[in-house]
Amino acid sequence: MTLGPIAILGGTGQQGSGLARRLAAAGVHVVVGSRDPVRARAAVDAWDPTVQVDVADNPSAAASADTVVLAVPFATVDALLAEIAPRLKAGAVVIDLIVPLSFAGGKMATIDVAEGSAAEHIRAKLPPTVTLACAFKTVPAHLLDRVDAPLDCDEFICGDSDAARARAIDVAAALAGLRPVDVGPLSRARGIEQMTVLAVAINRRHKIHDARFRVVGL
Amino acid sequence: MTLGPIAILGGTGQQGSGLARRLAAAGVHVVVGSRDPVRARAAVDAWDPTVQVDVADNPSAAASADTVVLAVPFATVDALLAEIAPRLKAGAVVIDLIVPLSFAGGKMATIDVAEGSAAEHIRAKLPPTVTLACAFKTVPAHLLDRVDAPLDCDEFICGDSDAARARAIDVAAALAGLRPVDVGPLSRARGIEQMTVLAVAINRRHKIHDARFRVVGL
Repeated sequence: MTLGPIAILGGTGQQGSGLARRLAAAGVHVVVGSRDPVRARAAVDAWDPTVQVDVADNPSAAASADTVVLAVPFATVDALLAEIAPRLKAGAVVIDLIVPLSFAGGKMATIDVAEGSAAEHIRAKLPPTVTLACAFKTVPAHLLDRVDAPLDCDEFICGDSDAARARAIDVAAALAGLRPVDVGPLSRARGIEQMTVLAVAINRRHKIHDARFRVVGL
Repeated sequence: MTLGPIAILGGTGQQGSGLARRLAAAGVHVVVGSRDPVRARAAVDAWDPTVQVDVADNPSAAASADTVVLAVPFATVDALLAEIAPRLKAGAVVIDLIVPLSFAGGKMATIDVAEGSAAEHIRAKLPPTVTLACAFKTVPAHLLDRVDAPLDCDEFICGDSDAARARAIDVAAALAGLRPVDVGPLSRARGIEQMTVLAVAINRRHKIHDARFRVVGL
């Protein structure tokens, strides 16, 4: 299917910029959202000049798109959601790639989330007029950002509705080398976020950088 | 390295019998523990007759081995631990493959475990003279039980000590087609057990039977 415009909020971070460039290269109309559109424009201009993306402040980017990707750290998502919630289009699909981890002092720590997962935390703060799916939680951020590197892995999709999951699957499938795997309801984000914790642990313990997952038997 | 005798408690269940037969075929001395050794002997005699395994009641099997695998459902592990705890050899390594799931009425449900994972629950009930590692939590039980089927996946190992992890890695590596991946401390069992939940969800949603995982990039 043809994907409409996709807003990527926090689109100059490692995950956001990797996603923006890979989607734009796949022919998707990307709007990079940022707290500072002037700096974001400069960052985007430093990317491959053949890649065309628009830039806007986060609320304007969110208001412009049928698919809105949240690509900010967990620590700042509440502030972002407060800002964009009134601007989201009715019927928009929000895609969350956030894992509740902190890396203060170089040490990974999981952040306890009362709702059970970042995804469920975000769902509780979104208006009922939009739906939510998870994607891109386990693909390593800096691998996503090395846009010429093959991804060569599976990505786990869950969501609060068939429509949201279907959209996230279409977005993930637009990235070469990434196979979306539908795992069901939004609460499965608990397991997906734990997989990211395991991947980071594997990286550190085995002195590698790109641990990620593939489902065997599917 | 050469593995000493391995006791597999609940060794006639799907996971236990698969593990027992695959380890025995690899030349390991296996003692199948059961609540009912007479019935267990009959079950074991129905296996491939070239496979040699001993049979004993669970406490005797536990007392006989330096490596003790717990292969019972979560619902019965407390009773088993009460029975075997006084009999475990000092210095024994216990290997836990239990995932806190129930399948009542054909519907998968996760069982809330106050300690955070089945592994941590078990650790709290073991004497301080033994160590604990996790293995075989994500490899599908019925695939393990089809002993001629290639496993072709990774298995996640965590534990309360280097020694316990090293033992679990040796046991897992004895199974053809299974690559052990050390993910660190026992609390990582939370993530590993969640991966099993995802694998079961993937099986059900995609109408397959053997969803399992491989780490890419390692």
